[in-house]
Amino acid sequence: MATDTMASSDRKKAVTSYDVAALAGVSQSAVSRCYKPGASVSKKMRAKVEQAAKELGYEPNALARSLITSRSNSVGVIISNLTNLYYPEVLAQLSRQFSEQGIRVLLFALESESEADRALSQIWQYKVDGVVCAAKLTKDQIAEFAGRDIPLLFYNRQAGSHAASAVCCDQAAGTEFMVEGLIRAGHRSFALLKGPRDSVVGAEREESARATLSKAGITDLIELDGDFSYEGARDAIRHMMDSKVATPDAVICANDVSAIGAIDTLRNEFDLEVPDQISVVGFDGVGPSSWASFGLTTIRQPVRRMTKAAVDMILERVETPELANEKRVFSGIFVRGSSARIIEG
Amino acid sequence: MATDTMASSDRKKAVTSYDVAALAGVSQSAVSRCYKPGASVSKKMRAKVEQAAKELGYEPNALARSLITSRSNSVGVIISNLTNLYYPEVLAQLSRQFSEQGIRVLLFALESESEADRALSQIWQYKVDGVVCAAKLTKDQIAEFAGRDIPLLFYNRQAGSHAASAVCCDQAAGTEFMVEGLIRAGHRSFALLKGPRDSVVGAEREESARATLSKAGITDLIELDGDFSYEGARDAIRHMMDSKVATPDAVICANDVSAIGAIDTLRNEFDLEVPDQISVVGFDGVGPSSWASFGLTTIRQPVRRMTKAAVDMILERVETPELANEKRVFSGIFVRGSSARIIEG
Repeated sequence: MATDTMASSDRKKAVTSYDVAALAGVSQSAVSRCYKPGASVSKKMRAKVEQAAKELGYEPNALARSLITSRSNSVGVIISNLTNLYYPEVLAQLSRQFSEQGIRVLLFALESESEADRALSQIWQYKVDGVVCAAKLTKDQIAEFAGRDIPLLFYNRQAGSHAASAVCCDQAAGTEFMVEGLIRAGHRSFALLKGPRDSVVGAEREESARATLSKAGITDLIELDGDFSYEGARDAIRHMMDSKVATPDAVICANDVSAIGAIDTLRNEFDLEVPDQISVVGFDGVGPSSWASFGLTTIRQPVRRMTKAAVDMILERVETPELANEKRVFSGIFVRGSSARIIEG
Repeated sequence: MATDTMASSDRKKAVTSYDVAALAGVSQSAVSRCYKPGASVSKKMRAKVEQAAKELGYEPNALARSLITSRSNSVGVIISNLTNLYYPEVLAQLSRQFSEQGIRVLLFALESESEADRALSQIWQYKVDGVVCAAKLTKDQIAEFAGRDIPLLFYNRQAGSHAASAVCCDQAAGTEFMVEGLIRAGHRSFALLKGPRDSVVGAEREESARATLSKAGITDLIELDGDFSYEGARDAIRHMMDSKVATPDAVICANDVSAIGAIDTLRNEFDLEVPDQISVVGFDGVGPSSWASFGLTTIRQPVRRMTKAAVDMILERVETPELANEKRVFSGIFVRGSSARIIEG
């Protein structure tokens, strides 16, 4: 088909990959490859095809194509606590890296970890190629992914079985490292500022802190309920200070944001020097943890490497469905801040 | 078709809305309505249909349906600076509100405002029903939306024409309010800590500050290049303090995060009291602005109301394409913090 015949007003509707191939002087399958994410095409070929596609106003219909290939070239990302400083970076990285592979990201932002039901019902309808999940799923929900042959990868939490892949930071080792350092520096009485009840990550950190302290013979802890938020930490610290228990030597917080809330409250409302009178540690390494006001002692998660692994692992399983599920555990990076007296082992 | 015949292994493939209707004892169109976002269905009807659908393992194929209705029931959200504390809240709200309407969100997170090209090429391929854009687009890119009949709405920036709808916070009025309050409180020398060069929002705030100061006869400003980040603000303040110009009475910052960076640096590196020796104001009302360490004086954007308006305006235009583009401007809320001496008019 010559280009001249395309100059009518219904140009867009009529243009097919064959028209582009004819104008570019290449085969139709070469045109097709140019629009297939991950397919190998020479720079020269791509330039020719893109030039011809532009001239003709051609674009492949991703929806129609996905029905033919049975792939939608999209992944679901389920994320909770999006406003809580850690996940925006994770999401930005995932979005960018999938996008570079020509994969679209369908986002499901949950208010809390346990409300995944609605997200899943939309995911089943949509037939995504895979899902990265940073929220809690039930065993039945996890099993449903397997039943539907949709690769599932948990981000920063473990599946608890081989029913899904997982990328996570070693919460236990990171917490153990900090708590041992606190004990070595002479801290003897501790408060545990916990995460929200439905958070797996919070539970893992709490358990590790408890086990490490117990090994050192410290079992009488001040337990504070938190929810990963600044305000939750502020309320918990007020409650602790008002309830006439002795002020602890150190507060082990479930994440950075609650550690920041603890520091601000101890300083501003109770005139305590951090770390001279009380040490505070967090977990995550979010941006504000390094702000001069806080200088948080924490474990930084290697987000760029972790998200890269998540993207790679999902795409491998979309390409090769028979691959077994795998888990990759990343070591956090200890950040020595000014908010805690710690002696490294 | 009786349910018994569905008990074979290819059950999922064979189940249609007619099967569900038969089991539920309702019409096929009632089943269809249950899976159509926004359609009116009684609770009782929905319960019957969902029960039958569950028993049969039925789910509507969203992709196939979208080809028939020519709607994909998805919107694109283009967002830049996702790691910059303001946009995560916007994104979480948009995601939740669209999801409640049965609309999926395709996320495109850009590194900087000006790299929208790749996102758009994916958006054209995908045939989304509409786009909410919190990034800069060229005139040609905006015109292309109109040419394709895809409703476009700018979030927190104006289209500069009638080619797109817009929801924004009144950057100029908010800035003017704060700057007038600073002048009224006796501040005479000012530094302007600007946003990144390609940011429309930053430019609007900067222009308003400049105009308000100029009206008061103050034209000799210290101009500092920033990029909305803590680190950028820290570097800019260091540069200002090292370059031997007189320390200004006040620093007007392009956003909250850079105001926080300015406060921390003035305090920790140059031993200045905020606000006794120097006032600092921000803009946005992000979470950390209210942390005790900062107590930022700022303009809080009404994110919940703004995102609600954005979702409503897009969905109206998907439903009724002939609606003209509209702009809704929201007033920011002045937050009197402890970081600036301000006298309200």
